[in-house]
Amino acid sequence: MGPVGICGSDIKYWTHGYCSGVFVLRAPMVLGHEGAGTVVQTGSKVKNLQVGDRVAIEPGVPCLRCRVCREGRYNLCPDMQFCATPPIHGNLCRLYKHPAAFCHRLPERVDLEQGALVEPLAVAVHACRRGGVRTGCLVLVCGADIDDGRLAFAKEIGADYVINVRGLEEPIAAQQIITTAGSAPDVTIECSGSDYSMTLGIHATHPGGSIVQVGRGSQVPSIPLTIAATKEVDIKGVFRYANCYETAISLINSGQLPNLKQLISHRYPLAETEVAFKTAMSRDAGAIKVIIDCDQ
Amino acid sequence: MGPVGICGSDIKYWTHGYCSGVFVLRAPMVLGHEGAGTVVQTGSKVKNLQVGDRVAIEPGVPCLRCRVCREGRYNLCPDMQFCATPPIHGNLCRLYKHPAAFCHRLPERVDLEQGALVEPLAVAVHACRRGGVRTGCLVLVCGADIDDGRLAFAKEIGADYVINVRGLEEPIAAQQIITTAGSAPDVTIECSGSDYSMTLGIHATHPGGSIVQVGRGSQVPSIPLTIAATKEVDIKGVFRYANCYETAISLINSGQLPNLKQLISHRYPLAETEVAFKTAMSRDAGAIKVIIDCDQ
Amino acid sequence: MGPVGICGSDIKYWTHGYCSGVFVLRAPMVLGHEGAGTVVQTGSKVKNLQVGDRVAIEPGVPCLRCRVCREGRYNLCPDMQFCATPPIHGNLCRLYKHPAAFCHRLPERVDLEQGALVEPLAVAVHACRRGGVRTGCLVLVCGADIDDGRLAFAKEIGADYVINVRGLEEPIAAQQIITTAGSAPDVTIECSGSDYSMTLGIHATHPGGSIVQVGRGSQVPSIPLTIAATKEVDIKGVFRYANCYETAISLINSGQLPNLKQLISHRYPLAETEVAFKTAMSRDAGAIKVIIDCDQ
Amino acid sequence: MGPVGICGSDIKYWTHGYCSGVFVLRAPMVLGHEGAGTVVQTGSKVKNLQVGDRVAIEPGVPCLRCRVCREGRYNLCPDMQFCATPPIHGNLCRLYKHPAAFCHRLPERVDLEQGALVEPLAVAVHACRRGGVRTGCLVLVCGADIDDGRLAFAKEIGADYVINVRGLEEPIAAQQIITTAGSAPDVTIECSGSDYSMTLGIHATHPGGSIVQVGRGSQVPSIPLTIAATKEVDIKGVFRYANCYETAISLINSGQLPNLKQLISHRYPLAETEVAFKTAMSRDAGAIKVIIDCDQ
Repeated sequence: MGPVGICGSDIKYWTHGYCSGVFVLRAPMVLGHEGAGTVVQTGSKVKNLQVGDRVAIEPGVPCLRCRVCREGRYNLCPDMQFCATPPIHGNLCRLYKHPAAFCHRLPERVDLEQGALVEPLAVAVHACRRGGVRTGCLVLVCGADIDDGRLAFAKEIGADYVINVRGLEEPIAAQQIITTAGSAPDVTIECSGSDYSMTLGIHATHPGGSIVQVGRGSQVPSIPLTIAATKEVDIKGVFRYANCYETAISLINSGQLPNLKQLISHRYPLAETEVAFKTAMSRDAGAIKVIIDCDQ
Repeated sequence: MGPVGICGSDIKYWTHGYCSGVFVLRAPMVLGHEGAGTVVQTGSKVKNLQVGDRVAIEPGVPCLRCRVCREGRYNLCPDMQFCATPPIHGNLCRLYKHPAAFCHRLPERVDLEQGALVEPLAVAVHACRRGGVRTGCLVLVCGADIDDGRLAFAKEIGADYVINVRGLEEPIAAQQIITTAGSAPDVTIECSGSDYSMTLGIHATHPGGSIVQVGRGSQVPSIPLTIAATKEVDIKGVFRYANCYETAISLINSGQLPNLKQLISHRYPLAETEVAFKTAMSRDAGAIKVIIDCDQ
Repeated sequence: MGPVGICGSDIKYWTHGYCSGVFVLRAPMVLGHEGAGTVVQTGSKVKNLQVGDRVAIEPGVPCLRCRVCREGRYNLCPDMQFCATPPIHGNLCRLYKHPAAFCHRLPERVDLEQGALVEPLAVAVHACRRGGVRTGCLVLVCGADIDDGRLAFAKEIGADYVINVRGLEEPIAAQQIITTAGSAPDVTIECSGSDYSMTLGIHATHPGGSIVQVGRGSQVPSIPLTIAATKEVDIKGVFRYANCYETAISLINSGQLPNLKQLISHRYPLAETEVAFKTAMSRDAGAIKVIIDCDQ
Repeated sequence: MGPVGICGSDIKYWTHGYCSGVFVLRAPMVLGHEGAGTVVQTGSKVKNLQVGDRVAIEPGVPCLRCRVCREGRYNLCPDMQFCATPPIHGNLCRLYKHPAAFCHRLPERVDLEQGALVEPLAVAVHACRRGGVRTGCLVLVCGADIDDGRLAFAKEIGADYVINVRGLEEPIAAQQIITTAGSAPDVTIECSGSDYSMTLGIHATHPGGSIVQVGRGSQVPSIPLTIAATKEVDIKGVFRYANCYETAISLINSGQLPNLKQLISHRYPLAETEVAFKTAMSRDAGAIKVIIDCDQ
C-alpha cells in the first residue's frame, strides 16, 4: 500500500472497539480504508489492471448478485465486505489484496496521495448525487458550523460564504443564511449529526429541496419533521457510496478541485502509526486529514 | 355546484376554527374544497370550457409566476389561494366562480360524484408520484392499521393483504408485513400521522426505498431517523398536489378504479349540511366519505 | 426445463442463421430463451433456491463487474452471455444449468406457463420504465397497426382504443389518435420497427414526452427527427431489460394481467419442436405465442 | 435596454425573413432577444423589482396556464410569445417593456454585458439538464469540429481536449475521442446540426448515455438510429430553455465561468447596428459574440 488516510471510524475502533453501535470489534483487525497503492501482482483473470498501475482502492466489496447490487445501489448490499469494518481487515499495511473491479486506476495527473483522498471525496460525490446537486445549485453544508478556524479554512478552499451559527436559534440562523446567500439553498448537506443542524436545514432549505443526512447523531433525533413535510423538503440519508470512485477520480483529474490536497494536515510513515492516530484524535493538533504512508 | 365531499379539514374548521396550527379562521368562511359541478357561465377569454361542461374543481389557485410555480411544483406556491383555507371561501354553495385553468372537464364516462372524488384521489396520485411508485412496486399503506372494519373495507376494494398491527412492536410488525407480502415494500405511504406508523415504515421499507408522509402528527416526532438514513430510505412529505387532476380523471375514465364510488358512504342535499357534518364526525356512523349535493 | 416460448429471434436463427446483422451463428446452438422450469439440483453456495422451486429463467447473464453492471444497467454489459445468442446455448432442452441469481422463484399463484411469459413481459416492463410510464399516463403502442385481427385481439385483452392506420399519412393518423384518445399520448412505444410508426409517434406524442423504440428497422431510418427535437420528444431505444423479472412476476402475481395467458395461441411437446416452429412462422396459423413444453 | 447580443436567428430574419422554416416574418419586427438592462419603471403590482435594478431579460413569455406550463416545461408552451420571433418585437431598442416575472435581477458582481450573455448560457444550462450532466460527467461537445481557430479558442476557455475530426469517418473519429479522453463520453451535446456530428455522437457516447440535439439540420437526417437504440443512447432535443435564467446567473455570480466575457468579440453602439450585423455575419471578422449597447 501507499498512503492511507485515517478516518473517524478508524479512531473509534482503536479507542472504543466499536463504531455507530452496530459495528463491534470481536477480534484483532487491521484498520484503514482510505487507501491507494501500486499494483504488484494480479490474478490470472484480471484484465483491467497491470503490475505497476497506481490505483485507488474502493474499500467495500459487495456481493454483486443481490437485488440492490443488480439495481446499481451496491452500497446497500447486505453481504458487503468493507475494509476495517469488523471482521474484515483494512489496508493500513504494506501488502494488501483486493478484487480488481474495486481497484480504480489513477490517471497520470493524479498522484497516490490524491488517490487516498478519493474515498472521502466519494462520500461527497454520493451525497451530492443523493441530493440532486447539479450545476448552479445553491448548497448549504452544515458541519463546521461553530468553529471559526474550520470555517475560515472552508472559505479558503472554496466556500462562497461561511457563517458561524453559534448561539443563534435555528429559524434565525436559517434566515441569516438565506439573506447572505441571496436565496434559500436548494440542497442542504448535513455533516455534523446534530439535531441543531438538521433543524436549521429544515428551516433554511428551499421548498421542494432536499436535506442529505451525512452525519449521524442520536438514533431518535428531535427535529421538526412536519415542517419539512409541509415544505416537501426530502430527508435523504447516505450510507457510504456506489459508483462514485470513477467520478471522484475524474473530478481530481480535471483540475476542478485544485485545493484538495490542502486537506492533508499531517503525514506519517507506517512505523509512526500510533503518533498519527494520536494526532488525528487531538483537537489541539488542528488535524484535518492525517495520512500514513505505508510505503515508507 | 354539484356534489362536494366533506374533508377532515372542513370538520376541524367547523369545530375548532383552525387546522394544522398555521391555518386559523378569523372571519366567517364557506367550507368545502372537494367539488364538481356544471359550468353555467364563462369569462370572455376562456377557451378550454363551455357552458354545460361538467368539471372537477382543483381548489388551489397558485400565482403561476413564482419560482416553484414556474418549475411545476405549484402546490408549494407561497401565494396559493385554496378553497376553504382561510380567508378563501370554499365551494359548498350553489353558485361558485373559479379560474378556468383549474376547472378540469370530465369525460362522458365520469359522473359528477366521481368528479367530487378527484380531489382526494389527486392526493393519492401525488403521494404515489412523490414516492416513485411505478408498475409492479410493492406498496405499504399505513393508516387504517388498527381498525378491523376499515381494514376489511380496504381488502374489499383492492388491497392484496391487510394486517392489523395493534399491539405489535414496530420491528415485529414490519417483519410480519414483509413475510406476508413476500418482500419488503418499495414504498410506504403513511397516512395516519402517528409516530408508530412512521417507525413501522422505517423498519419495513426496502433499503433504497421511500416513505411518503401524507399524515401529519406531532411537530417533532420521535422516530428512528438514523435507521432510515443508514438504509437510504428517504422521507418525503406531501403537501396537497400539483398536476394531478388530469391523471386522476384519466384513471377514473380508464376504469382502473372500479370501486372508487364505494368510498361514498353517505349522501345529503345542501339543506342538510349540518347533519352531513355530524355524520362525517361520528365514529358510530361508520362514515368513509360523506357527500353533499349542492344541486339538490 | 418446462415451457419455453418461441421468439422471433429463434425463428431467424433457425431459418437464416443470424439475427439483427451482428449476431451470427457459426456452430450448432440450442435455441430458446423464454423458459421456466423446476429446480432439480443446486450448487453448494446457492442460498436463494431449493430443489423443487419453480423458476422463470432470466436468459442474460452479465459480468456484474463492469461499469454498466455496477450502475444497474447490466443489459448493456459488453460481456453478456445470453441464451440462444451465439455462441451461448439456449434452454429448449430437458435439463439446463443457469446461475442462481438469474433464476427467479415463482410464487404459488404463478404457474410455469406464466413463468415462460415473464421474458416477453420483462421487455414490456423495461420499455415502460425507459419511457417513464406511470399511473394515469396515456400510452400509444404502435406495432399491430394494420392488422385488424391483431388490433381486435389487442382491444379484447385491454387496449382502451385501437386504430387501423393503414393508408393514412402520419400527421393525419396522429391527429386521429389524439382525437380518439382525447389527448396526445405521453409516451409512444414503437414495436414495429417501421419508419412509418416512428414518424407517426413523433407527430402524435405530447410535447415533452418520449418514444420508446422497441422495434428494429433499417439501420438508418428516414424519420423527422427535427420535429421530435423541437417538441422535446425524446427517442429512447431499448435493448433487452435489466431488473425487470421481479417486477414482471409481481405483476402477474397481483392479478393485474388477467389476460396474459390468452397470448399463448399454441402449445407443443418438445418432440414436436419442428411443427411448433413452423406454426410460429406461419401467418395463416394466426400464432401469437407458441409454447413448447420441454417436460412432455 | 443595455447590451443586446446578436444571435444566428436575428441574422436569418434580417437576411432571409424567416428562421427554421416555421417562423416567417410577415411584418416589420424589432430584432434582439439576448438583452439586459436597467429598470426605469414598474407596474403597480410588481413586487420583485424596483427602478434601478439591473436585469437579464428572459425573452420568452409563456401563457403559464396550459399543461406544459403548469408542469414546469414552459418552453414548450404553444402560446409562447418570444422576443424577435414573429410577430413579437425584440428588445434591440432604447426602451422596452417586459413582464416582471421574466426579468431576472442581476447580483452586484454580475455586470450588464454578462447579463446579455445569460440568454445563450441558459441554452447551455438547459442542454446540460436535458442530458443529465452532473459533476464529474465526461461531456463531448460537437460543433466547432473542423475549425482549428474555434477549437483553439474552446481549449483556451476551458475544454480539456479538442479534436479536429475533419476527414475522419465517424467511427474512427469516435474512437479517437474515446482514446484521447480515456473513456467514452457520458453525454454528447451536438451543436452543429450536421448528420456527421449526430452519427459521431452515436458512435462515441457511452452505452446508457445521451445525445442532446442543440443544433438543427435537415428535417429528416440520415443517422444510424438503430445503433443508438441498441446502446440505449437517448436522443434528446432541446427547444430554448425553462427555469434556466436563475441558474445561469448564479453560475456567473459564483465565479465558475471566469472566461465568459471572452466570448464577446465585438461591441457596437445602437447607432451602428448595421455594421454590427455585418460583422456578426462575416466569417472573416472572426466574430464569436457581437454585442450592441442600446444605452450608447
